[in-house]
Amino acid sequence: MPKKTKKNNPRYVVGIDLGGTKILAAVVDDKGQVLGRSKRKTRGKTDNATDPETVTDRVVTCVQDAVAAAGLKLGDIAAVGASAPGPVNVETGFVARMANLPGWEEGFAFGPELSKRLKLPVWVDNDVNLGTLGEVVYGAGRGMKDVIGIFVGTGIGGGIVLGGKLRRGVRWAAGEIGHMFVDISAIQRGGPVCGCGEPGHVEAIASRGAISRRLAAAIAAGEPTLLAAEVKDESELTSGAIRRAWEAGDELTRRVIAETQEVMGLLIASVVNLLDPEGIILGGGLVESLGDAYVEPVRRHAYAHFFLPDRAGEVKIMRAALGDDATILGASVLARSGL
Amino acid sequence: MPKKTKKNNPRYVVGIDLGGTKILAAVVDDKGQVLGRSKRKTRGKTDNATDPETVTDRVVTCVQDAVAAAGLKLGDIAAVGASAPGPVNVETGFVARMANLPGWEEGFAFGPELSKRLKLPVWVDNDVNLGTLGEVVYGAGRGMKDVIGIFVGTGIGGGIVLGGKLRRGVRWAAGEIGHMFVDISAIQRGGPVCGCGEPGHVEAIASRGAISRRLAAAIAAGEPTLLAAEVKDESELTSGAIRRAWEAGDELTRRVIAETQEVMGLLIASVVNLLDPEGIILGGGLVESLGDAYVEPVRRHAYAHFFLPDRAGEVKIMRAALGDDATILGASVLARSGL
Repeated sequence: MPKKTKKNNPRYVVGIDLGGTKILAAVVDDKGQVLGRSKRKTRGKTDNATDPETVTDRVVTCVQDAVAAAGLKLGDIAAVGASAPGPVNVETGFVARMANLPGWEEGFAFGPELSKRLKLPVWVDNDVNLGTLGEVVYGAGRGMKDVIGIFVGTGIGGGIVLGGKLRRGVRWAAGEIGHMFVDISAIQRGGPVCGCGEPGHVEAIASRGAISRRLAAAIAAGEPTLLAAEVKDESELTSGAIRRAWEAGDELTRRVIAETQEVMGLLIASVVNLLDPEGIILGGGLVESLGDAYVEPVRRHAYAHFFLPDRAGEVKIMRAALGDDATILGASVLARSGL
Repeated sequence: MPKKTKKNNPRYVVGIDLGGTKILAAVVDDKGQVLGRSKRKTRGKTDNATDPETVTDRVVTCVQDAVAAAGLKLGDIAAVGASAPGPVNVETGFVARMANLPGWEEGFAFGPELSKRLKLPVWVDNDVNLGTLGEVVYGAGRGMKDVIGIFVGTGIGGGIVLGGKLRRGVRWAAGEIGHMFVDISAIQRGGPVCGCGEPGHVEAIASRGAISRRLAAAIAAGEPTLLAAEVKDESELTSGAIRRAWEAGDELTRRVIAETQEVMGLLIASVVNLLDPEGIILGGGLVESLGDAYVEPVRRHAYAHFFLPDRAGEVKIMRAALGDDATILGASVLARSGL
């Protein structure tokens, strides 16, 4: 774990969101205000190499650009927080793997390497953890101490804040909410599989990826849908395409979304029955795309299945407020607080 | 929340396990040694009244007996911890309800009333919470800080210790692990229902109560089983009767138990994928009755479904070690530490 330097201005830190597609960096002050930001492709414009050293160099450039955009120098920055998709050992800054990024299979000491290049203390954590932390400190969960973040996109990720602190787990693997079993009947039935290969997980049923697969199968089977004309293959069934069909009242899309909203409600009920938190925050690509129209039915289904139903409303179910900024802001909180 | 008195000997506290059937009380020293104990029926030998005042009087007698058995006086006791089955507001000592106990429907300020009678500070918490705490401090989870207790009996209860402290929840309702959905297909299919009336909960499928119901239905349907001769109705399908049939190699019993062991393994995998704790402790009537032969297949199924399977073994899955004493010992820990 890096030590904080005293000489730099503690008002300014950098938050980084390192994803498989893009790198975001921002200079953030102690009120959560973004003073300057920058964005780069993870794979590079001209050089497609994705080995850890090359990607880390791109992160450095992205940080330098964000610092310049804020009218500052690296020497003005007190510390850096960064996210990576996948399990991260927060004590060592070691990223166990990056989703779909060739060259990262064996993991990489991303924190120490970035720290060496920037000559700044660097903390690293999982992206969904930091997205949840950002929402709790500066977004939908402001003022709460016990919040579960659930992010619905290609997969379903989760972050857990209890007592104001991220729960990391004994193997740095806490929050893998997408890999909770909600439908064990699917194991015998041979239901759709999760990103991890298992049937019965909520990610296999209710993620945007799962929705796209169901829609693609329905299109292939000739079911009537507005999507048939719009998309050529499953890869085009993005959150945006789903939203357009949904807004146009496409029956197939509405039915599939409604089914997954019930599943998400039951998942939330399970998590609440276990942890009884103050709040649940729903975010991610699908939620941002469909907005409150997605969240409201999920909330209704969830409340209908809480233990102590008379007091269900004491657990708030909220839509994430910060969009893409949640993770960089959470990274800035990590930079300020260390572990 | 009561204040600790200074005048009494901090070496001695009393732990109480108030259940719907029996009351246990014990004087416990600061090493977790039981110096004297007592047991009474909750409903009374001659007087069947179960109103809160009468039951509290019986608890007082039980405590006095335990203190006398330890060769002590009430004045030697520093504090009292007590458990109740159901949600308890630990700050006020208010028991929201007691399972199946007429007269407690509106709840009762059990902590304050018991404190008034004993003239001692009294803390109260849920029985499964205190059973888990007892196992973590003095039993199977010794030395661990992050442990989930899962108790399989008529229902399925849970307790959560994170960072060495019980997680209570915003509505004092955390740990209701039996009411987690594992089989949402059962909702449409009209599967068996939980103690709370809902299908799809793990308690509806894998509790001792669920096993008894399945066995009773199989007996009624004329399926061949050694149990047909032994039991007349479902109420006789106790953990003991199930154990005897299981040990005698009864095929029906073995099959039903094996199916529920897989379900418990998947439940544990879900909880571990969410919380990534150091340990899982399995206890309760069914687990005590069947012993390691119950735990071992559950462990195998669980490990097969962990996120980060290569490191599954870092999360220990253990059998509870303290039996009936877990709750009174957990209550003694509560008495020592307050909240």
